[in-house]
Amino acid sequence: MVLPRAISDLINAFERLPGIGPKSASRLAFYLLNTPETYLSDFAGKLVGLKKGTKICRECFSVSENEVCQICADQKRDKGLICVVERAIDVVAIEKVGGYRGVYHVLGGVINPLEHVGPEDLKINELLERIKEAGETEIILAMNPTMEGEATALYLKKQIESKSQITNHKLQIKVTRIGSGLPMGADLEFADQATLARAMEGRRMI
Amino acid sequence: MVLPRAISDLINAFERLPGIGPKSASRLAFYLLNTPETYLSDFAGKLVGLKKGTKICRECFSVSENEVCQICADQKRDKGLICVVERAIDVVAIEKVGGYRGVYHVLGGVINPLEHVGPEDLKINELLERIKEAGETEIILAMNPTMEGEATALYLKKQIESKSQITNHKLQIKVTRIGSGLPMGADLEFADQATLARAMEGRRMI
Repeated sequence: MVLPRAISDLINAFERLPGIGPKSASRLAFYLLNTPETYLSDFAGKLVGLKKGTKICRECFSVSENEVCQICADQKRDKGLICVVERAIDVVAIEKVGGYRGVYHVLGGVINPLEHVGPEDLKINELLERIKEAGETEIILAMNPTMEGEATALYLKKQIESKSQITNHKLQIKVTRIGSGLPMGADLEFADQATLARAMEGRRMI
Repeated sequence: MVLPRAISDLINAFERLPGIGPKSASRLAFYLLNTPETYLSDFAGKLVGLKKGTKICRECFSVSENEVCQICADQKRDKGLICVVERAIDVVAIEKVGGYRGVYHVLGGVINPLEHVGPEDLKINELLERIKEAGETEIILAMNPTMEGEATALYLKKQIESKSQITNHKLQIKVTRIGSGLPMGADLEFADQATLARAMEGRRMI
């Protein structure tokens, strides 16, 4: 059955989004067919306005409405605690938990040779610059516990250490990595080997 | 954390779509933030063009590019076999299976008193009109096997029968209902009671 082009075009557009398969894409397109025209043009306006209404914070490279994001501009935030994440959406995830009182640094990805992403494609120099000017600082490396995330964490640790050695404030910089192991509520029986190994390795005194 | 309005607006727009929760909506918005501006305006254009590029077939009320849809216009389709479905997307589902050589009739929903949908809100009169002019015809009632779908099927059966009695071609009209029971590949042990009861009821000679 050949669908009207207007519908199949929209289905294709939805299908290209992450996590939306052919069935969901059809469902969304047919759902929208029954919504008022104003809803569609409103939605379209939001898509077009997305980039125009969004800036990149010049300090932490997270998303922002202004030159400097709300978190970096917040005087109550501890500037001596920098959480390094892959993407801006990770900032949202950590902020949702609440409790973190430091600031962030968004790398814009991880080192991934297979996808031709090298250190120069990420905001690594910008991070080293931030640290250079800092006093006593803890850098929390919060990249995802994937192969690429781990490799990027190791790379960053080395870079930060050599940089802080040159500028003579090595003792002031502490580099940490977020904990990994079994997620809360998980079942040891069903955990994969890598996670279990990491959980054993990362055991703590209680 | 307060996100830039452009992002949170788009997240809200996605969240209103069926099957997209808050997490997926965020993920989609942040994904789109990293796509080129042309992609966004292209997507927006498809949303706006959706209704303009889509007509409702005047015979079967499915979606169409022209006044009459491809299926109704197809001379090879058996006009004496009408499959009544709730929505246009159901036509797509049946067509994907292939093999069905009849035509369709899209009701536009089912009778649902709780949502204030009565028979007059559906294309029921239009169906009765189609049948009035028809010769020997089988009407396959393919509404979903839900409470509302079943009730609508019963209502339609009565309407069709009383209408065909008046016009004196009762013998020519056969009303059937799509089969229901265990889906292929299912496990009897895990089937719900209603499905199992229906499967027993709908047993056939083999």
